[in-house]
Amino acid sequence: MFEKILYPTDFSDASKKAIAYLKNMKTAGTRQVIILNVIDEKKVEYSSQGITWAGLSVADFLRQTYQRLIEEAHEELKSVESELKEAGFDIKVMAEKGNPYSKILEVAEEEDVSAIILGSHGKSNLKSMPLGSVSEYVIHHSTKPVIVIRRD
Amino acid sequence: MFEKILYPTDFSDASKKAIAYLKNMKTAGTRQVIILNVIDEKKVEYSSQGITWAGLSVADFLRQTYQRLIEEAHEELKSVESELKEAGFDIKVMAEKGNPYSKILEVAEEEDVSAIILGSHGKSNLKSMPLGSVSEYVIHHSTKPVIVIRRD
Repeated sequence: MFEKILYPTDFSDASKKAIAYLKNMKTAGTRQVIILNVIDEKKVEYSSQGITWAGLSVADFLRQTYQRLIEEAHEELKSVESELKEAGFDIKVMAEKGNPYSKILEVAEEEDVSAIILGSHGKSNLKSMPLGSVSEYVIHHSTKPVIVIRRD
Repeated sequence: MFEKILYPTDFSDASKKAIAYLKNMKTAGTRQVIILNVIDEKKVEYSSQGITWAGLSVADFLRQTYQRLIEEAHEELKSVESELKEAGFDIKVMAEKGNPYSKILEVAEEEDVSAIILGSHGKSNLKSMPLGSVSEYVIHHSTKPVIVIRRD
């Protein structure tokens, strides 16, 4: 039922909220968790506009930037990984560049997960609780069940 | 974890999709399901505008209309109830008048459910898959986890 869960994270407080919830999903039959961080291609490419310094070509700048961002992501992913490993799950860690919107859905399909878990950016002092545009997109387009967890 | 699930239904195909999913949630530890149908107060009140026929006062019209709608809802709820009872759940059935947006959240709080399950109005042939405004509202405002199931 909930055997294989995709947990996309941008390392925000909202997405971290889902970790505590995920840990309890052991009792609901969860065995494997795929932790996914997507490095937003568009943001990186945008930051490359006007790169003419340091003797770098745009291609080199992009290559180096991605490498650095993927390394940084893996650093952050490590602590999430160890926390969830401790809880007894099989873990697969992925840091991928791409469009976060489509990448999350793509991985969900490829890995044929049981469900996707998302933390929401809830702010209890406000009546409006934006989910974040990536979460919204995933909820609307996923063919897999989506579990939305409030930060509260 | 998923012991007590709130299943709001408007008897649409989208919400019925969630039944099949719910049945499998036995293996995830679900024991109790609250089936909730909310009779939309606003729609009923709107339909009362201009009621001057049949010798009925607006108050009588509303009373009679609610009574009829609640009876109809219980008819429909019966088949959902028996399907889920067969799957081995404890069932609580509720047909309530009110604002569907707030009523669902109210019942979720009062009953302290583990999660709310919602069917989405997914249409695989369209790129946009509207969830329905009630589902949207619940996802954005619920303090309880929400599980969104695609109709596919």
